[in-house]
Amino acid sequence: MGITPQEYKQLQNRLSGSRRTAAPVLAPSASASARSTVIILGIDPSLRGTGYGIIRVEKPAPRALAYGKIHCPEGWQRSRCLANISQTLRELLKQHNPGVCAIEGLFFAQNLQTALIMGEARGAALAAIAEAGIEIYEVAPRKVKQAIVGYGAAQKIAVAKMVQRMLRLVDLPEPDAADALALALSYSQGQGRYSLSQPKRV
Amino acid sequence: MGITPQEYKQLQNRLSGSRRTAAPVLAPSASASARSTVIILGIDPSLRGTGYGIIRVEKPAPRALAYGKIHCPEGWQRSRCLANISQTLRELLKQHNPGVCAIEGLFFAQNLQTALIMGEARGAALAAIAEAGIEIYEVAPRKVKQAIVGYGAAQKIAVAKMVQRMLRLVDLPEPDAADALALALSYSQGQGRYSLSQPKRV
Repeated sequence: MGITPQEYKQLQNRLSGSRRTAAPVLAPSASASARSTVIILGIDPSLRGTGYGIIRVEKPAPRALAYGKIHCPEGWQRSRCLANISQTLRELLKQHNPGVCAIEGLFFAQNLQTALIMGEARGAALAAIAEAGIEIYEVAPRKVKQAIVGYGAAQKIAVAKMVQRMLRLVDLPEPDAADALALALSYSQGQGRYSLSQPKRV
Repeated sequence: MGITPQEYKQLQNRLSGSRRTAAPVLAPSASASARSTVIILGIDPSLRGTGYGIIRVEKPAPRALAYGKIHCPEGWQRSRCLANISQTLRELLKQHNPGVCAIEGLFFAQNLQTALIMGEARGAALAAIAEAGIEIYEVAPRKVKQAIVGYGAAQKIAVAKMVQRMLRLVDLPEPDAADALALALSYSQGQGRYSLSQPKRV
Protein backbone atom coordinates (compact mmCIF):
# COMPACT_ATOMS: atom_id res chain seq x y z
CA MET A 1 0.00 0.00 0.00
CA GLY A 2 1.59 3.26 -1.15
CA ILE A 3 1.04 6.89 -0.42
CA THR A 4 -0.30 9.36 -2.97
CA PRO A 5 1.71 12.45 -3.92
CA GLN A 6 -1.03 14.59 -2.41
CA GLU A 7 -0.84 12.73 0.88
CA TYR A 8 2.92 12.86 0.81
CA LYS A 9 2.79 16.65 0.45
CA GLN A 10 0.28 16.94 3.30
CA LEU A 11 2.46 14.74 5.44
CA GLN A 12 5.59 16.72 4.60
CA ASN A 13 3.83 19.96 5.44
CA ARG A 14 2.71 18.52 8.75
CA LEU A 15 6.16 17.24 9.60
CA SER A 16 8.20 20.20 8.37
CA GLY A 17 6.56 22.69 10.66
CA SER A 18 5.01 24.81 7.92
CA ARG A 19 2.74 27.66 9.00
CA ARG A 20 -0.39 25.55 9.12
CA THR A 21 1.04 23.04 11.56
CA ALA A 22 3.55 25.15 13.44
CA ALA A 23 1.86 24.36 16.73
CA PRO A 24 2.29 20.83 18.03
CA VAL A 25 -0.71 18.76 16.97
CA LEU A 26 -1.63 18.07 20.54
CA ALA A 27 -0.79 21.46 22.02
CA PRO A 28 -2.88 21.48 25.18
CA SER A 29 -5.67 24.01 24.92
CA ALA A 30 -7.05 25.75 27.99
CA SER A 31 -9.57 23.00 28.66
CA ALA A 32 -7.23 20.14 27.78
CA SER A 33 -4.50 21.36 30.11
CA ALA A 34 -6.95 21.32 32.98
CA ARG A 35 -7.23 17.56 32.55
CA SER A 36 -3.77 16.78 31.28
CA THR A 37 -3.59 13.33 32.79
CA VAL A 38 -6.64 11.96 30.99
CA ILE A 39 -6.30 8.43 29.66
CA ILE A 40 -8.11 7.69 26.40
CA LEU A 41 -8.92 4.34 24.82
CA GLY A 42 -9.29 4.29 21.05
CA ILE A 43 -10.91 1.22 19.55
CA ASP A 44 -11.47 -0.06 16.02
CA PRO A 45 -13.58 -3.22 16.40
CA SER A 46 -13.70 -6.03 13.89
CA LEU A 47 -14.44 -9.71 14.35
CA ARG A 48 -10.95 -11.04 13.53
CA GLY A 49 -8.73 -8.08 14.37
CA THR A 50 -9.96 -5.43 16.77
CA GLY A 51 -7.44 -2.61 17.02
CA TYR A 52 -6.96 -0.87 20.35
CA GLY A 53 -4.79 1.96 21.57
CA ILE A 54 -4.58 3.60 24.97
CA ILE A 55 -2.90 6.98 25.33
CA ARG A 56 -2.24 9.32 28.19
CA VAL A 57 -2.46 13.03 27.37
CA GLU A 58 0.74 14.44 28.83
CA LYS A 59 3.07 17.37 28.32
CA PRO A 60 4.96 17.85 26.15
CA ALA A 61 3.46 15.05 24.09
CA PRO A 62 0.87 12.30 24.49
CA ARG A 63 2.18 8.89 25.41
CA ALA A 64 1.02 5.45 24.27
CA LEU A 65 0.35 3.16 27.22
CA ALA A 66 -0.71 0.12 25.21
CA TYR A 67 -1.73 -0.71 21.67
CA GLY A 68 -2.22 -3.75 19.51
CA LYS A 69 -4.72 -6.04 17.87
CA ILE A 70 -7.10 -8.55 19.42
CA HIS A 71 -6.47 -11.35 16.98
CA CYS A 72 -9.14 -14.04 16.45
CA PRO A 73 -8.04 -16.72 13.95
CA GLU A 74 -10.30 -17.62 11.00
CA GLY A 75 -10.94 -21.04 12.51
CA TRP A 76 -12.62 -19.62 15.62
CA GLN A 77 -16.38 -19.57 15.87
CA ARG A 78 -17.90 -16.09 15.81
CA SER A 79 -19.09 -16.31 19.40
CA ARG A 80 -15.61 -17.27 20.58
CA CYS A 81 -14.21 -14.15 18.87
CA LEU A 82 -16.84 -11.96 20.54
CA ALA A 83 -16.06 -13.42 23.96
CA ASN A 84 -12.36 -12.87 23.33
CA ILE A 85 -12.92 -9.22 22.37
CA SER A 86 -14.90 -8.60 25.58
CA GLN A 87 -12.43 -10.41 27.82
CA THR A 88 -9.30 -8.83 26.38
CA LEU A 89 -10.78 -5.35 26.60
CA ARG A 90 -11.88 -5.92 30.19
CA GLU A 91 -8.30 -6.85 31.12
CA LEU A 92 -6.93 -3.78 29.33
CA LEU A 93 -9.42 -1.53 31.11
CA LYS A 94 -8.44 -2.99 34.48
CA GLN A 95 -4.76 -2.48 33.72
CA HIS A 96 -4.87 1.07 32.32
CA ASN A 97 -8.11 2.50 33.65
CA PRO A 98 -9.05 4.87 30.78
CA GLY A 99 -11.65 7.52 31.53
CA VAL A 100 -13.07 7.78 28.05
CA CYS A 101 -13.31 5.76 24.83
CA ALA A 102 -13.29 6.89 21.19
CA ILE A 103 -14.74 4.63 18.51
CA GLU A 104 -15.37 5.09 14.79
CA GLY A 105 -18.71 6.65 13.99
CA LEU A 106 -20.43 6.37 10.62
CA PHE A 107 -18.57 3.93 8.46
CA PHE A 108 -18.91 2.03 5.30
CA ALA A 109 -20.11 -1.56 5.09
CA GLN A 110 -20.33 -3.42 1.80
CA ASN A 111 -23.59 -5.20 2.57
CA LEU A 112 -26.02 -6.15 5.32
CA GLN A 113 -24.10 -9.28 6.29
CA THR A 114 -20.87 -7.31 6.72
CA ALA A 115 -22.67 -4.61 8.70
CA LEU A 116 -24.16 -7.28 10.97
CA ILE A 117 -20.81 -8.92 11.67
CA MET A 118 -19.09 -5.57 12.22
CA GLY A 119 -21.98 -4.62 14.47
CA GLU A 120 -21.53 -7.77 16.54
CA ALA A 121 -17.86 -6.99 17.10
CA ARG A 122 -18.73 -3.42 18.07
CA GLY A 123 -21.44 -4.62 20.43
CA ALA A 124 -19.10 -7.04 22.20
CA ALA A 125 -16.54 -4.24 22.62
CA LEU A 126 -18.95 -1.47 23.60
CA ALA A 127 -20.79 -3.60 26.16
CA ALA A 128 -17.53 -4.41 27.98
CA ILE A 129 -16.42 -0.78 27.89
CA ALA A 130 -19.78 0.65 28.95
CA GLU A 131 -20.08 -1.90 31.77
CA ALA A 132 -16.84 -0.48 33.15
CA GLY A 133 -18.55 2.91 33.36
CA ILE A 134 -16.45 4.49 30.63
CA GLU A 135 -18.00 7.21 28.46
CA ILE A 136 -17.95 6.33 24.76
CA TYR A 137 -17.75 8.84 21.91
CA GLU A 138 -18.04 8.31 18.18
CA VAL A 139 -15.65 10.07 15.84
CA ALA A 140 -16.26 9.97 12.08
CA PRO A 141 -13.41 8.31 10.11
CA ARG A 142 -12.84 11.42 8.00
CA LYS A 143 -12.52 13.55 11.14
CA VAL A 144 -9.84 11.20 12.43
CA LYS A 145 -7.83 11.48 9.24
CA GLN A 146 -8.31 15.24 9.11
CA ALA A 147 -7.16 15.55 12.70
CA ILE A 148 -4.12 13.33 12.34
CA VAL A 149 -2.92 13.79 8.75
CA GLY A 150 -4.81 16.98 7.89
CA TYR A 151 -6.48 15.29 4.94
CA GLY A 152 -9.82 13.46 5.18
CA ALA A 153 -9.11 10.81 2.57
CA ALA A 154 -5.61 9.94 3.78
CA GLN A 155 -4.40 6.37 3.33
CA LYS A 156 -3.81 4.07 6.25
CA ILE A 157 -0.02 4.25 5.96
CA ALA A 158 -0.08 8.04 6.28
CA VAL A 159 -2.17 7.76 9.44
CA ALA A 160 0.16 5.14 10.89
CA LYS A 161 3.26 7.25 10.16
CA MET A 162 1.76 10.34 11.76
CA VAL A 163 0.62 8.33 14.79
CA GLN A 164 4.13 6.92 15.14
CA ARG A 165 5.56 10.43 15.08
CA MET A 166 3.02 11.98 17.44
CA LEU A 167 3.52 9.25 20.02
CA ARG A 168 7.26 8.92 19.41
CA LEU A 169 6.99 5.21 18.79
CA VAL A 170 10.14 3.36 17.76
CA ASP A 171 8.33 1.17 15.23
CA LEU A 172 5.49 1.88 12.85
CA PRO A 173 2.33 0.54 14.54
CA GLU A 174 0.39 -2.07 12.58
CA PRO A 175 -2.66 -0.64 10.74
CA ASP A 176 -5.40 -1.76 13.18
CA ALA A 177 -3.52 -0.48 16.23
CA ALA A 178 -2.59 2.73 14.40
CA ASP A 179 -6.23 3.42 13.57
CA ALA A 180 -7.20 2.92 17.21
CA LEU A 181 -4.39 5.20 18.42
CA ALA A 182 -5.47 7.78 15.81
CA LEU A 183 -9.00 7.67 17.23
CA ALA A 184 -7.70 8.30 20.74
CA LEU A 185 -5.44 11.13 19.52
CA SER A 186 -8.16 12.80 17.48
CA TYR A 187 -10.55 12.55 20.42
CA SER A 188 -8.00 14.31 22.62
CA GLN A 189 -7.79 17.08 20.00
CA GLY A 190 -11.57 17.33 19.76
CA GLN A 191 -11.57 18.22 23.42
CA GLY A 192 -9.90 21.57 22.69
CA ARG A 193 -11.99 24.67 23.39
CA TYR A 194 -11.91 25.78 19.75
CA SER A 195 -12.90 22.41 18.42
CA LEU A 196 -15.59 22.69 15.73
CA SER A 197 -16.82 19.12 15.76
CA GLN A 198 -17.39 17.64 19.18
CA PRO A 199 -17.48 13.83 19.17
CA LYS A 200 -20.93 12.33 19.66
CA ARG A 201 -21.56 10.39 22.84
CA VAL A 202 -23.17 6.98 22.28
CA MET B 1 -52.25 -7.71 14.76
CA GLY B 2 -54.62 -10.43 13.52
CA ILE B 3 -54.24 -13.97 12.33
CA THR B 4 -54.84 -15.01 8.72
CA PRO B 5 -57.41 -17.69 7.91
CA GLN B 6 -54.56 -19.89 6.64
CA GLU B 7 -52.67 -19.53 9.91
CA TYR B 8 -55.83 -20.14 11.86
CA LYS B 9 -56.40 -23.40 10.01
CA GLN B 10 -52.78 -24.45 10.60
CA LEU B 11 -53.12 -23.60 14.24
CA GLN B 12 -56.40 -25.48 14.54
CA ASN B 13 -54.85 -28.53 12.90
CA ARG B 14 -51.95 -28.37 15.30
CA LEU B 15 -54.18 -28.02 18.32
CA SER B 16 -56.87 -30.51 17.36
CA GLY B 17 -54.50 -33.43 17.15
CA SER B 18 -54.95 -34.08 13.44
CA ARG B 19 -52.81 -36.81 11.86
CA ARG B 20 -49.88 -34.52 11.11
CA THR B 21 -49.45 -33.40 14.69
CA ALA B 22 -50.73 -36.41 16.60
CA ALA B 23 -47.43 -36.73 18.44
CA PRO B 24 -46.67 -34.09 21.05
CA VAL B 25 -44.55 -31.41 19.47
CA LEU B 26 -41.77 -32.04 21.90
CA ALA B 27 -42.04 -35.83 22.08
CA PRO B 28 -38.57 -36.81 23.25
CA SER B 29 -36.73 -38.69 20.54
CA ALA B 30 -34.07 -41.26 21.36
CA SER B 31 -31.32 -38.67 21.56
CA ALA B 32 -33.41 -36.06 23.32
CA SER B 33 -34.49 -38.45 26.06
CA ALA B 34 -30.85 -39.18 26.82
CA ARG B 35 -30.45 -35.56 27.87
CA SER B 36 -33.92 -34.86 29.14
CA THR B 37 -32.86 -32.30 31.70
CA VAL B 38 -31.20 -29.96 29.23
CA ILE B 39 -31.80 -26.25 29.82
CA ILE B 40 -32.01 -24.07 26.71
CA LEU B 41 -31.80 -20.30 26.43
CA GLY B 42 -33.56 -18.72 23.47
CA ILE B 43 -32.65 -15.14 22.70
CA ASP B 44 -33.96 -12.51 20.29
CA PRO B 45 -31.62 -9.51 20.67
CA SER B 46 -32.56 -5.95 19.86
CA LEU B 47 -31.23 -2.69 21.26
CA ARG B 48 -34.39 -1.58 23.08
CA GLY B 49 -36.15 -4.89 23.76
CA THR B 50 -34.14 -8.11 23.80
CA GLY B 51 -36.45 -11.09 24.25
CA TYR B 52 -35.23 -14.05 26.27
CA GLY B 53 -36.71 -17.37 27.25
CA ILE B 54 -35.22 -20.23 29.22
CA ILE B 55 -36.83 -23.65 29.05
CA ARG B 56 -36.09 -27.01 30.62
CA VAL B 57 -36.80 -30.04 28.43
CA GLU B 58 -38.84 -32.29 30.70
CA LYS B 59 -41.39 -35.05 30.44
CA PRO B 60 -44.22 -34.88 29.67
CA ALA B 61 -43.76 -31.30 28.46
CA PRO B 62 -41.07 -28.64 28.40
CA ARG B 63 -41.22 -26.07 31.16
CA ALA B 64 -40.46 -22.34 31.04
CA LEU B 65 -38.00 -21.34 33.75
CA ALA B 66 -37.85 -17.64 32.90
CA TYR B 67 -38.84 -15.36 30.05
CA GLY B 68 -39.24 -11.68 29.39
CA LYS B 69 -37.79 -8.64 27.71
CA ILE B 70 -34.66 -6.67 28.55
CA HIS B 71 -36.16 -3.22 28.21
CA CYS B 72 -33.92 -0.25 27.42
CA PRO B 73 -35.86 3.05 27.23
CA GLU B 74 -35.50 5.32 24.18
CA GLY B 75 -33.72 7.91 26.29
CA TRP B 76 -30.80 5.59 27.09
CA GLN B 77 -27.57 5.92 25.19
CA ARG B 78 -26.76 2.98 22.94
CA SER B 79 -23.79 1.91 25.03
CA ARG B 80 -25.90 1.86 28.18
CA CYS B 81 -28.38 -0.47 26.46
CA LEU B 82 -25.57 -2.79 25.38
CA ALA B 83 -24.16 -2.91 28.91
CA ASN B 84 -27.63 -3.63 30.26
CA ILE B 85 -28.15 -6.50 27.80
CA SER B 86 -24.83 -8.09 28.83
CA GLN B 87 -25.41 -7.64 32.55
CA THR B 88 -28.99 -8.89 32.59
CA LEU B 89 -28.08 -11.96 30.56
CA ARG B 90 -25.13 -12.72 32.83
CA GLU B 91 -27.47 -12.69 35.84
CA LEU B 92 -29.96 -14.95 34.06
CA LEU B 93 -27.20 -17.40 33.13
CA LYS B 94 -25.99 -17.53 36.71
CA GLN B 95 -29.51 -18.15 37.96
CA HIS B 96 -30.62 -20.80 35.47
CA ASN B 97 -27.39 -22.23 34.10
CA PRO B 98 -28.48 -23.13 30.55
CA GLY B 99 -26.26 -25.52 28.61
CA VAL B 100 -27.02 -24.19 25.17
CA CYS B 101 -28.35 -21.05 23.47
CA ALA B 102 -30.50 -20.64 20.35
CA ILE B 103 -30.49 -17.35 18.48
CA GLU B 104 -32.05 -16.21 15.22
CA GLY B 105 -29.93 -16.89 12.17
CA LEU B 106 -30.33 -15.09 8.86
CA PHE B 107 -32.74 -12.24 9.26
CA PHE B 108 -33.96 -9.21 7.49
CA ALA B 109 -32.63 -5.72 8.11
CA GLN B 110 -34.02 -2.70 6.30
CA ASN B 111 -30.70 -0.98 5.78
CA LEU B 112 -27.06 -0.89 6.85
CA GLN B 113 -27.73 1.32 9.84
CA THR B 114 -30.40 -1.04 11.15
CA ALA B 115 -28.17 -4.06 10.57
CA LEU B 116 -25.36 -2.35 12.47
CA ILE B 117 -27.54 -1.55 15.47
CA MET B 118 -29.08 -5.02 15.50
CA GLY B 119 -25.56 -6.43 15.20
CA GLU B 120 -24.40 -4.43 18.21
CA ALA B 121 -27.24 -5.82 20.33
CA ARG B 122 -26.43 -9.34 19.15
CA GLY B 123 -22.73 -8.85 19.89
CA ALA B 124 -23.40 -7.65 23.43
CA ALA B 125 -25.64 -10.68 24.03
CA LEU B 126 -23.45 -13.29 22.33
CA ALA B 127 -20.26 -12.13 24.06
CA ALA B 128 -21.86 -12.51 27.50
CA ILE B 129 -23.29 -15.93 26.61
CA ALA B 130 -20.09 -17.22 24.98
CA GLU B 131 -17.98 -15.99 27.90
CA ALA B 132 -20.08 -18.22 30.14
CA GLY B 133 -18.96 -21.18 28.02
CA ILE B 134 -22.41 -21.80 26.52
CA GLU B 135 -22.66 -23.23 23.00
CA ILE B 136 -24.61 -20.96 20.65
CA TYR B 137 -26.65 -22.14 17.67
CA GLU B 138 -28.39 -20.15 14.97
CA VAL B 139 -31.87 -21.13 13.86
CA ALA B 140 -33.42 -19.46 10.80
CA PRO B 141 -36.64 -17.53 11.56
CA ARG B 142 -38.66 -19.61 9.08
CA LYS B 143 -37.47 -22.81 10.74
CA VAL B 144 -38.67 -21.53 14.08
CA LYS B 145 -42.13 -20.77 12.71
CA GLN B 146 -42.27 -24.07 10.87
CA ALA B 147 -41.28 -25.92 14.02
CA ILE B 148 -43.73 -24.14 16.30
CA VAL B 149 -46.74 -23.28 14.12
CA GLY B 150 -46.07 -25.62 11.20
CA TYR B 151 -46.07 -22.69 8.78
CA GLY B 152 -42.96 -20.71 7.85
CA ALA B 153 -44.66 -17.35 7.36
CA ALA B 154 -46.76 -17.48 10.53
CA GLN B 155 -47.56 -14.21 12.26
CA LYS B 156 -46.17 -13.35 15.65
CA ILE B 157 -49.47 -13.87 17.44
CA ALA B 158 -49.74 -17.43 16.14
CA VAL B 159 -46.24 -18.17 17.44
CA ALA B 160 -47.05 -16.64 20.83
CA LYS B 161 -50.28 -18.67 21.15
CA MET B 162 -48.54 -21.92 20.28
CA VAL B 163 -45.69 -21.16 22.68
CA GLN B 164 -48.22 -20.44 25.43
CA ARG B 165 -49.89 -23.80 24.77
CA MET B 166 -46.66 -25.83 24.50
CA LEU B 167 -45.32 -24.44 27.75
CA ARG B 168 -48.72 -24.36 29.50
CA LEU B 169 -48.37 -20.69 30.35
CA VAL B 170 -51.31 -19.01 32.06
CA ASP B 171 -50.93 -15.78 30.05
CA LEU B 172 -49.97 -15.12 26.47
CA PRO B 173 -46.26 -14.19 26.52
CA GLU B 174 -45.41 -10.81 25.03
CA PRO B 175 -44.07 -10.99 21.44
CA ASP B 176 -40.33 -10.60 22.21
CA ALA B 177 -40.37 -13.20 24.96
CA ALA B 178 -42.55 -15.52 22.86
CA ASP B 179 -40.07 -15.36 19.98
CA ALA B 180 -37.23 -16.23 22.33
CA LEU B 181 -39.17 -19.13 23.86
CA ALA B 182 -40.02 -20.31 20.33
CA LEU B 183 -36.31 -20.32 19.48
CA ALA B 184 -35.54 -22.45 22.52
CA LEU B 185 -38.42 -24.83 21.75
CA SER B 186 -37.50 -25.20 18.09
CA TYR B 187 -33.89 -25.83 19.04
CA SER B 188 -34.99 -28.61 21.37
CA GLN B 189 -36.94 -30.15 18.47
CA GLY B 190 -33.97 -29.80 16.13
CA GLN B 191 -32.04 -32.04 18.48
CA GLY B 192 -34.20 -35.03 17.52
CA ARG B 193 -32.46 -37.85 15.67
CA TYR B 194 -34.71 -37.46 12.63
CA SER B 195 -34.21 -33.72 12.40
CA LEU B 196 -33.52 -32.59 8.84
CA SER B 197 -32.07 -29.18 9.59
CA GLN B 198 -29.54 -29.09 12.37
CA PRO B 199 -28.99 -25.62 13.80
CA LYS B 200 -25.68 -24.01 12.88
CA ARG B 201 -23.18 -23.43 15.64
CA VAL B 202 -21.73 -19.90 15.71
